[in-house]
Formats: sequence, structure tokens, C-alpha cells
Amino acid sequence: MENLLKDYERIDDLHIKDLKIIQNTRGFCFGIDAVLLASFVELKKNSKVMDLGTGTGIIPLLLAGKSTSSSITAIEIQQEVADMAIRSVVFNKLEDRIKILNIDLKTASEHVPVNEFDVVTTNPPYMHANGLINPDDKKAISRHEIKCSLEDVIQTASKLLKHHGRFFMIHRPQRLVDIMVLCRKHKLEPKRLQFIHPAHGRKPNLLMIDCRKAAQPELRILDPLVVYDEDGEYTQELLERYNKKTVEERGDANE
Amino acid sequence: MENLLKDYERIDDLHIKDLKIIQNTRGFCFGIDAVLLASFVELKKNSKVMDLGTGTGIIPLLLAGKSTSSSITAIEIQQEVADMAIRSVVFNKLEDRIKILNIDLKTASEHVPVNEFDVVTTNPPYMHANGLINPDDKKAISRHEIKCSLEDVIQTASKLLKHHGRFFMIHRPQRLVDIMVLCRKHKLEPKRLQFIHPAHGRKPNLLMIDCRKAAQPELRILDPLVVYDEDGEYTQELLERYNKKTVEERGDANE
Repeated sequence: MENLLKDYERIDDLHIKDLKIIQNTRGFCFGIDAVLLASFVELKKNSKVMDLGTGTGIIPLLLAGKSTSSSITAIEIQQEVADMAIRSVVFNKLEDRIKILNIDLKTASEHVPVNEFDVVTTNPPYMHANGLINPDDKKAISRHEIKCSLEDVIQTASKLLKHHGRFFMIHRPQRLVDIMVLCRKHKLEPKRLQFIHPAHGRKPNLLMIDCRKAAQPELRILDPLVVYDEDGEYTQELLERYNKKTVEERGDANE
Repeated sequence: MENLLKDYERIDDLHIKDLKIIQNTRGFCFGIDAVLLASFVELKKNSKVMDLGTGTGIIPLLLAGKSTSSSITAIEIQQEVADMAIRSVVFNKLEDRIKILNIDLKTASEHVPVNEFDVVTTNPPYMHANGLINPDDKKAISRHEIKCSLEDVIQTASKLLKHHGRFFMIHRPQRLVDIMVLCRKHKLEPKRLQFIHPAHGRKPNLLMIDCRKAAQPELRILDPLVVYDEDGEYTQELLERYNKKTVEERGDANE
């Protein structure tokens, strides 16, 4: 155990099939976003999955927990963060199911086959890069489009997906126009859209989108997902998406 | 009064400043959509307004009722329907404020100045045209993209609006991707988006969008608007948008 952890790192229990994840207490820790996205993803048996910008590997771990897929590849550009993801995979003995690549997602097609993945997932940086950001700040790289733009993510997803393959992304409603325009530009047609509202009657602060490569246009908006009830507790619907304890422990880190 | 009405026509009270509208009981009657859109539109004093595909003129009448604008132009392609709108304008003594043009909106720039309108509104046909539709059916023309496509409407709005002019549209969520893609293509940047839900927790069945010509991207999604409460009654919020009686009498005609 000692060798597994570096300074400021800890092991957190995902409360799904005894899975654990290594996180750095001073770095970017996964939030409710990743949990919601993993619950939104629909996998078939033996789906070939790619997660773009995986961070510490939370989405591959959750997808391994909820499926029998044995072909999950994940890409992370930051060496230290990718290394944590690799160690989490080893710690969970999932080396035969999850492969972490420490590469730039813009070069993905040089490292993995194109037009072959059934599913691409991503919880990308939400915010535009701007002059105020320290480009060496690891948290900033997870939050801002410093190393990749939204278009890079969508374009890469489209390249890797096979015909009618599915692209699942969680993002901010402020970027809805960009998402729609870029997805259609890159032949990922939005088919399902779910807004996540902090409370009943309040405007959404997150959205999840399910696109299908080269599909016909016809968007279905799902019933809204509400996070907190009138008493400030997680709604039943949210709890069903994931284990309550884990959500509470992690908090909404991806703010 | 006798001369004003033709066969199957009736005069309905809009319950706003004593305004009336002529409708044909066998034709397309306005629905909650027009009422919601009129309440969503933000006008400044003396705004120069254009309504595209005005039908019997419901939106110009409601906007005349809620503002002091004396420059409202409206376009309707169907001669019989435009004629009803013209008679409603006369009946309400609004000839100096509302002008109805019986033209094809695709030729609008030959009849009205371009780059001059402050506001363009539209409650366009929601559905794609398909082979099953009778193109002579007046209701079908109001509901399906027979005489104009969504892109025709958006392109025309963009032509007529001045720099930073605003475009207000109500439409179906299924067309959200088309709306976003076409608005951005024609330089109408979506700035505010409100979804209309039939009930709390249910997916939206209408949306209203407020775009600004040549504006910077940054979409704000508003709190959802809910039509019916748990008891099947109109919500307080909806009632505040309009007079209850009128909504009940008209029903959701634009289905």
C-alpha cells in the first residue's frame, strides 16, 4: 500500500463492487458529474469504450463496475494524473479490462484504431481558457480548455467511433449552442439530452448529451434530473444513480 | 359587424385591453404557444417589430396590447388568413400601429427594409413537411414546413434585424439542434432559452429562444416554465403570463 501512494494521495472507496480510486487531495477530485455521466452511459455486452480526458480514471472504473465490458481505453494528457489512473487500475486488478494511455487526445488516432469504438465518453473541461489561468495548474487543465478545445474532444470522438457509435458527454448549459453546432459539424447527431437541475423549478447547471455518429436528426429531451429536494437532501432519483455515501464524500468537486 | 365576419368566423375576446381577434372555427386557431411567446418577447419603447408567419395576427395584437410600439409589421402568406388578420386590426382600430402584409416571407426584403428591425418574432410551423400532407390544407400550412422551412424563417429574421436586434421564437424541443445550428449559421446567437414543461418533473414539449444578431456566444437557460400543477390546473406562473380565461377558451390549439 505504501508504494502505491505518493504525497497527498489517498485511496477512496467508490462503493461499487468494492472499487477504489486514488486521488490527490491537492488536485482535481472527481465530482458528481462523473458519477452522473457514468450512470447515463448505455453499454451493450462487450462494448468497446473510450474515455477522453479521463483524469484519475473515475469513468472507466465506474463503467467497469456497471458492465462486463473488457475493452475500456482511456486517455489522459497529464502524466502525473494518468499515473494515478494507472495505479488505480492495478489496485483494482482491472488491467485486463482498462487501459490508460498518457497521450494528447488530439493524437489519439495515432495510438488507437479509428472508426472502431462503440462508445466514447467524456467529462471534458467546461470553461474557455483565458488569460487569468496558470497553464501549469493541474486543476486548471481539468477545468479549462487549455490542452484541448471542445471541438478537439468532439472531433476526436467522431474519428474513433464506428458508424452509429455513441458519444456521451456531460457539460454546462452555457455551452449548449457550441455543443450542438460542433456535434453536428462532426457527424455526431444529438439524440438524447438530459438537463440536471440543482432543485425543482430551478434552471439547469449541467447537461448530459447522447449523440450517435451519422444518425438522422431527431432530438429527444428526457425528463429533468433534479439533484436536491426541498429539504436540501439528494432526491431519490439521484440516489438511485449512485451510492449516496460516495456522492456525499466527494461533493460537487467539479465546480 | 355582419360585414366583418365571413362563414365560420367568430370574434374572440383576448382579455387584454379589450382586444378582439377574428378566427375561423374550421381553421387554425391560436394556441397557448402564441400567448407564451408574446409574454417572452421583450420590447423597448418604440421597438420596430416584425412577426413572421403571423396567421390571424395574434402575436401583433398581443404585442400591441402589452406595449406602446406603433411599428408592428406582420407577414402572412395565406390570403384568407392574412385577410382575417387585417380585419382584426381594423376592428381593434390598430391600423396606425399594425400593418399586415400578405406576402411570402422569403420575399420580405423586397417589401420591407433590411437591417432595420429591433425585434423579429415567430411562431412558425413546427413539423417537417412530408408526403402525407395536403398542401391546400390551411391548418397544415400553419403546422408543417410546406411554404417555408425553419431555415427560411431564421434567414429572413436575420436579414431584417438590425445589428444586435433580437429574434424571439417558440418551437419544439425535437428541433433544438436544427434551431441552434441554423441560428448560429445566420448570425443570430442564442442568448436566452426557456423550456416549457407540461408538468413538474416532465420533459419539455415547447421551448422559447431569444437570439441576438451578431452577439457573442453565451447561452443562459432560464428557470423552466411549468404549465399545469399537480391538480391539473394552470400554474400561477402561467396565469401570470396571461389571462386565464383566454387560455382556457382557446385551448392548446397549436398541437
